[in-house]
Amino acid sequence: MYNDYMDESLLQLNEKDELCHLLTLKNLDKTAIEKILDQAQIYTASKIISDEERGFFQNLTIANLFFEPSTRTRVSFEIAARYLGCNVINIDIENSSEKKGESLIDTAKTIQSLGANVLIVRHGEQDTLKLIANEIGEHCIVINAGEANISHPTQGLLDLLTIRQEKKSFENLIVTIIGDLSHSRVAQSTAQGLTTMGVREIRLVSPEQFSLDENISHVCRSLSNVDEGIKNADVVMALRIQHERINATGEEYTTQNYFEEFGLTHNRMKLASPDAIIMHPGPMNRNVEIESSLANSPKSVIQRQVANGVAVRIAVIDQLLKSRLK
Amino acid sequence: MYNDYMDESLLQLNEKDELCHLLTLKNLDKTAIEKILDQAQIYTASKIISDEERGFFQNLTIANLFFEPSTRTRVSFEIAARYLGCNVINIDIENSSEKKGESLIDTAKTIQSLGANVLIVRHGEQDTLKLIANEIGEHCIVINAGEANISHPTQGLLDLLTIRQEKKSFENLIVTIIGDLSHSRVAQSTAQGLTTMGVREIRLVSPEQFSLDENISHVCRSLSNVDEGIKNADVVMALRIQHERINATGEEYTTQNYFEEFGLTHNRMKLASPDAIIMHPGPMNRNVEIESSLANSPKSVIQRQVANGVAVRIAVIDQLLKSRLK
Amino acid sequence: MYNDYMDESLLQLNEKDELCHLLTLKNLDKTAIEKILDQAQIYTASKIISDEERGFFQNLTIANLFFEPSTRTRVSFEIAARYLGCNVINIDIENSSEKKGESLIDTAKTIQSLGANVLIVRHGEQDTLKLIANEIGEHCIVINAGEANISHPTQGLLDLLTIRQEKKSFENLIVTIIGDLSHSRVAQSTAQGLTTMGVREIRLVSPEQFSLDENISHVCRSLSNVDEGIKNADVVMALRIQHERINATGEEYTTQNYFEEFGLTHNRMKLASPDAIIMHPGPMNRNVEIESSLANSPKSVIQRQVANGVAVRIAVIDQLLKSRLK
Repeated sequence: MYNDYMDESLLQLNEKDELCHLLTLKNLDKTAIEKILDQAQIYTASKIISDEERGFFQNLTIANLFFEPSTRTRVSFEIAARYLGCNVINIDIENSSEKKGESLIDTAKTIQSLGANVLIVRHGEQDTLKLIANEIGEHCIVINAGEANISHPTQGLLDLLTIRQEKKSFENLIVTIIGDLSHSRVAQSTAQGLTTMGVREIRLVSPEQFSLDENISHVCRSLSNVDEGIKNADVVMALRIQHERINATGEEYTTQNYFEEFGLTHNRMKLASPDAIIMHPGPMNRNVEIESSLANSPKSVIQRQVANGVAVRIAVIDQLLKSRLK
Repeated sequence: MYNDYMDESLLQLNEKDELCHLLTLKNLDKTAIEKILDQAQIYTASKIISDEERGFFQNLTIANLFFEPSTRTRVSFEIAARYLGCNVINIDIENSSEKKGESLIDTAKTIQSLGANVLIVRHGEQDTLKLIANEIGEHCIVINAGEANISHPTQGLLDLLTIRQEKKSFENLIVTIIGDLSHSRVAQSTAQGLTTMGVREIRLVSPEQFSLDENISHVCRSLSNVDEGIKNADVVMALRIQHERINATGEEYTTQNYFEEFGLTHNRMKLASPDAIIMHPGPMNRNVEIESSLANSPKSVIQRQVANGVAVRIAVIDQLLKSRLK
Repeated sequence: MYNDYMDESLLQLNEKDELCHLLTLKNLDKTAIEKILDQAQIYTASKIISDEERGFFQNLTIANLFFEPSTRTRVSFEIAARYLGCNVINIDIENSSEKKGESLIDTAKTIQSLGANVLIVRHGEQDTLKLIANEIGEHCIVINAGEANISHPTQGLLDLLTIRQEKKSFENLIVTIIGDLSHSRVAQSTAQGLTTMGVREIRLVSPEQFSLDENISHVCRSLSNVDEGIKNADVVMALRIQHERINATGEEYTTQNYFEEFGLTHNRMKLASPDAIIMHPGPMNRNVEIESSLANSPKSVIQRQVANGVAVRIAVIDQLLKSRLK
């Protein structure tokens, strides 16, 4: 029923083609992405919020509306919003089967009527973000904090920021993403962003059970052999096995042989480019997706990803609020 | 055992007969209600809090102490308190059977000793608000955020504000409230407030199973025929069927025929006054209590009720804190 | 495996032997304790935070990371941090058996990378605080909010503050602690602090099942007769029976005869010093550990303990942040 609505990549742009929501990285142009990354980079250096800015933000309310449990993303948005001086309201709603369609919209409308200027939404079902932006987007900014297994744009942006800090340029990069692709909302957003930024190749490595049905972009290449995937890669990202989503769909999977077949190890990393970096969206299952000591090694930028996540979210909230309300 | 205490309508007044808690709309005089509505009306227009006021409020702490789950009321109080610049603490305590009598008081005393200046309490049992105000009311302002099935004064006030915005005067109004009256804490508070404001008639329409035992006021009239209830009404309010409270008492009820017999429809609204407005305290069960498209129609002020709820709560917190502490 | 790490009483001191975390009262010297108590005493009188201080604190984030449920301690830290003007993030993680070792550390590292300047941690397992301080202590201040059944230093400090307010000097005091010693994290911290402050005698009274295995200090004396324990005592503290921890270990205990044998009563208090005070860390089981009316009597300082808890936590956060960051 929701398919009648506009595509979310159009819905997130205003009449001047500026970003007015953040729903997806799909089709988001390079200029818009770079504008966010540039500002986020400033925030990584603990930019001080001016009194004038604080006066602007202190009357604004950000609502975290999470239909799926989250610690790191919810807290990251909360810290970002508080950093600017905004009020933050946390609303956790268990993802019950009744919370669908119209009643979801009524919940969103209520939060907006209560005074939320920004609605940060995580939901387990596809098209919910689009639906909400359609219904209340005129009155309230909508930011995607994770939608089904299809997108997680701020995670994609923090991955881009982290790579840019290490690699300076995206051109010529080979980026390898290994793991549970089919249940990952991260992989798609990151791959979409990397494509826009002009990387040479994105290698998507997974057990056959976890491969993506759809081709994300012309630079993506699906592989099932991890060694082949890592060879000469500049960036290697291991994904978390999403047990909770695997179980929810009634699939079966055992991680028993996963580490042996797909785990990221010191040994395997010898195949990569000598200055390759290692990423993981977290939380990690150590010694399942990644050798524990490798996650702590100098090659790993995993902790930096977390910190960059806050900077990216500050930049996104800042830009969307200022372009709408200032 | 609590019946020894003073009536809550007296307990909420100080020695100068000014409001010092908000426990009930019963017997609250017209001047006190109008003072809240007048100030709330100003807050609906985004009144800016002065620096001096902010300085006053920023050292004050509001605690939401909810013994029953709530999203909209809790968030509404939270946004109201933050709007003024107060600190907000959320404490959710599952309504277990052990949390009774003395231990409830110990919890309230602890929160007050921790530094709460205002305790906003929702509780499923009657007389808990009175009990708390009796025990800690000298040190801490107590506001009722929903008590058993008997009262919800801030919801009553937001209903009054919404009606006043549309109808200018309460005199000569016919207000019809339809639905699960016996489990509704809203109906009683709203009817008490409407009576004080001088409406001509309040029609209480419900299935026999959900009728009120007690007569709220001399202008109230109980009906079981919904068409008769709606005829010439100026305000028509549909109540939510409170499944959770119906189930808790072991009653049985099926909503199968409810919409047909008591649902608010476009068709039925033709019987009402031509400029009648439609209200619902939310959350709505669309196409059970109300025809979905009717809830979205221009006659509906349901979203405005939500926004007015914040304004009313700002006014209540503001007045109670200033009269106590300034 | 964690025994390789430094003792927590050393780990909480920096190279200049100043407090840089608060992990335990064990071996914390008198000067450090008095510095906290002196500042806390000032905060009990509603010290105003200066604009300069507020500017310092408003960019700092305190994270409550609670692996066990808590209302009073969590809220107490939250109010304390907000009082200073800090941002507060609440993270409740159910104490699942999987949350161990490395993954606990990853959680703590993530919170720190998100921008927390202070991590306030409650955990059901011994040595977790030490582990966290070891791993992230360089970047983030760690404060113990309750560790297993072994320590709860801020509760110990608030007990000391309350006693000092009433008794002026610790010398010559007889302090009697009655109840479930073996499951109490409070008893050990309070007894350690009292020892350092130089009390004459600490009497530890409990049913045999709940006695401590280990001797806390040279001034401690274990007793099983409550009358003997109370005789001439200056301070009498009843502990809560920790049903949840008793059950968790599979022990059995009935409180049926507890009140008769160990309950603190008006009658028994006649044996104590005439100006003895009564304490309880809360929440109380009235008429189990303590006669209800005794808890409300003038001898009781139980509500003041709660208020002092906030003052102590303000002082601890203030000192640790300023000594680290200013």
